[in-house]
Amino acid sequence: GYASSGKKVTLIPGDGIGPEISAAVQKIFTAASVPIEWEAVDVTPVRGPDGRFGIPQAAIDSVNTNKIGLKGPLMTPVGKGHRSLNLALRKEFNLYANVRPCRSLEGYKTLYDNVDVVTIRENTEGEYSGIEHEIIDGVVQSIKLITEEASKRVAEYAFQYAKNNNRKKVTVVHKANIMRMSDGLFLRCVRDMAQKFPEIQFEERYLDTVCLNMVQNPAKYDVLVMPNLYGDILSDMCAGLVGGLGLTPSGNMGLNGALFESVHGTAPDIAGKDLANPTALLLSAVMMLRHMELNSHADKIERAAFETIKEGKYLTGDLGGRAKCSEFTNEICAKL
Amino acid sequence: GYASSGKKVTLIPGDGIGPEISAAVQKIFTAASVPIEWEAVDVTPVRGPDGRFGIPQAAIDSVNTNKIGLKGPLMTPVGKGHRSLNLALRKEFNLYANVRPCRSLEGYKTLYDNVDVVTIRENTEGEYSGIEHEIIDGVVQSIKLITEEASKRVAEYAFQYAKNNNRKKVTVVHKANIMRMSDGLFLRCVRDMAQKFPEIQFEERYLDTVCLNMVQNPAKYDVLVMPNLYGDILSDMCAGLVGGLGLTPSGNMGLNGALFESVHGTAPDIAGKDLANPTALLLSAVMMLRHMELNSHADKIERAAFETIKEGKYLTGDLGGRAKCSEFTNEICAKL
Ligand SMILES: CC(C)[C@H](C(=O)O)[C@@H](O)C(=O)O
Ligand SMILES: CC(C)[C@H](C(=O)O)[C@@H](O)C(=O)O
Repeated sequence: GYASSGKKVTLIPGDGIGPEISAAVQKIFTAASVPIEWEAVDVTPVRGPDGRFGIPQAAIDSVNTNKIGLKGPLMTPVGKGHRSLNLALRKEFNLYANVRPCRSLEGYKTLYDNVDVVTIRENTEGEYSGIEHEIIDGVVQSIKLITEEASKRVAEYAFQYAKNNNRKKVTVVHKANIMRMSDGLFLRCVRDMAQKFPEIQFEERYLDTVCLNMVQNPAKYDVLVMPNLYGDILSDMCAGLVGGLGLTPSGNMGLNGALFESVHGTAPDIAGKDLANPTALLLSAVMMLRHMELNSHADKIERAAFETIKEGKYLTGDLGGRAKCSEFTNEICAKL
Repeated sequence: GYASSGKKVTLIPGDGIGPEISAAVQKIFTAASVPIEWEAVDVTPVRGPDGRFGIPQAAIDSVNTNKIGLKGPLMTPVGKGHRSLNLALRKEFNLYANVRPCRSLEGYKTLYDNVDVVTIRENTEGEYSGIEHEIIDGVVQSIKLITEEASKRVAEYAFQYAKNNNRKKVTVVHKANIMRMSDGLFLRCVRDMAQKFPEIQFEERYLDTVCLNMVQNPAKYDVLVMPNLYGDILSDMCAGLVGGLGLTPSGNMGLNGALFESVHGTAPDIAGKDLANPTALLLSAVMMLRHMELNSHADKIERAAFETIKEGKYLTGDLGGRAKCSEFTNEICAKL
């Protein structure tokens, strides 16, 4: 297992508030005596021998060797030809399943107090294929690509996740009434996989119906699995129910490694001012620890973070408090 | 204008609860002395000379002549080869803009009390193109088709709608960071149109961001315009915020006519039992009256319906009451 001391983890601190929230996570990990060693890398695109920009080789090597990484928010470089760096990483490391648990936090009140869902998003194809053409002037097509291979892979991940995490139900979210062949294929792959997990309940729902029901009664749902774009939408919506992207973790699972990340922005306006909220990155790091089977460290850190939020004395500005990032961080460390 | 007596309106009562809620609307219109004449038609697909199923010619002729219609929920016929009848109607009559206002009802409590948004959805292309292929076994593509013509048309409709209805802002909802060419084209068309309406505020937002913000603070938004699928999702989500599809109206605007409809299902389980809630169809009919410039009739009926809901004495089962459809209907008539 991973639980030997000194396992190396790649750290991509990121841009904007990335470095300070990464430092906060590192501090908390130290306070909790987590037996890992950080390997910080820079992923700012560099121009390769072919003249095109790409992720630096050292960063690629680090993730490929360590097979596990934590990543802060990244800015997409400005200028034509730069695609999102987040997407480039998903592609580079074949991160095929994006997992985002959304749970109501006891300490942070929203309109909802009963959210406990996990969105599992196919992360490599669908509407994100990048294949587009202008047929004639003023007529454009984008291609949504669905393959059996990727659909099966994410379907299996979803059921296995449900099983490992004592979840009761998997809902496949689709629009196969409209995209009969593409969403139809995705749907069939998940349906077939459901057969292999008879202990997990299974249901099929239209995306629009899920959106409607989710805002009325999120307790209807448990684990949800879906094509790429639908996951993009639903995961943000669910994050909204529990307080936003500053509070929700995310993990990208690959064949050869996994990358955990906060999915909020780089918040350049408050960068470097010790005002950022490190919770999303910290909870992503907690997900990472569970993935590494460092469960007791994960539980301990999560408990300390939740308690700090619940007490409400050291909340950052985005949560309605006045604490600095370092004060919030110190309070969590003090509880450890 | 339309406001001459006896203007004919096509009525498609629909399936399941369709006939009873249509009868309820007719009764209320009579009580309000609305100067229109109903022309009921059946749209159940019939087999044509070419052997394919299609909408009966009499129904098509009626809508084409009257240029205005009201439609209850339709069942999609079972069996291979039948596409959704709702979609067939959108196509047949070139209904290019789908308009769904969502407003918090004073009388019906949800988690939100400040929703007042209108989603305007491109209704003819996008992800609903119906063009799909299996490239090789297990690899499928669906084509999202965006044209300048349809994008401009719906953009113009949105700004004109905002202007006519004293709305302050139009938000275009897109994923042009991912689908750079297709959503990029849509975005540019709306952006260009914004120039022609300097009195209307304009903003551009990612779909995922809108979903997140909408569940946290719907007051951020006013009129939203977007490609087909995004409209499908967002309109259902917004309906969820104010109580569901049983309470929200919908209008499909075409070049040669307009079709107003409730977008909830046919509810076969309660069909024929006098238990259905006619509100969505009634409010759609009210939208229709405004479209026909029968504003005082529209206002009167809307007020009576809202008051009945607010008083809460005659609510149908879906709203937590015990009234029959006919009791709710009679109460509205009594107020007229
Ligand atoms: C930043 C953007 C490209 C990305 C996406 O669309 O997937 C983001 O919204 C996400 O959810 O990770
Ligand atoms: C019934 C279905 C085909 C339709 C759609 O997907 O557009 C519905 O959800 C709607 O919003 O009108």
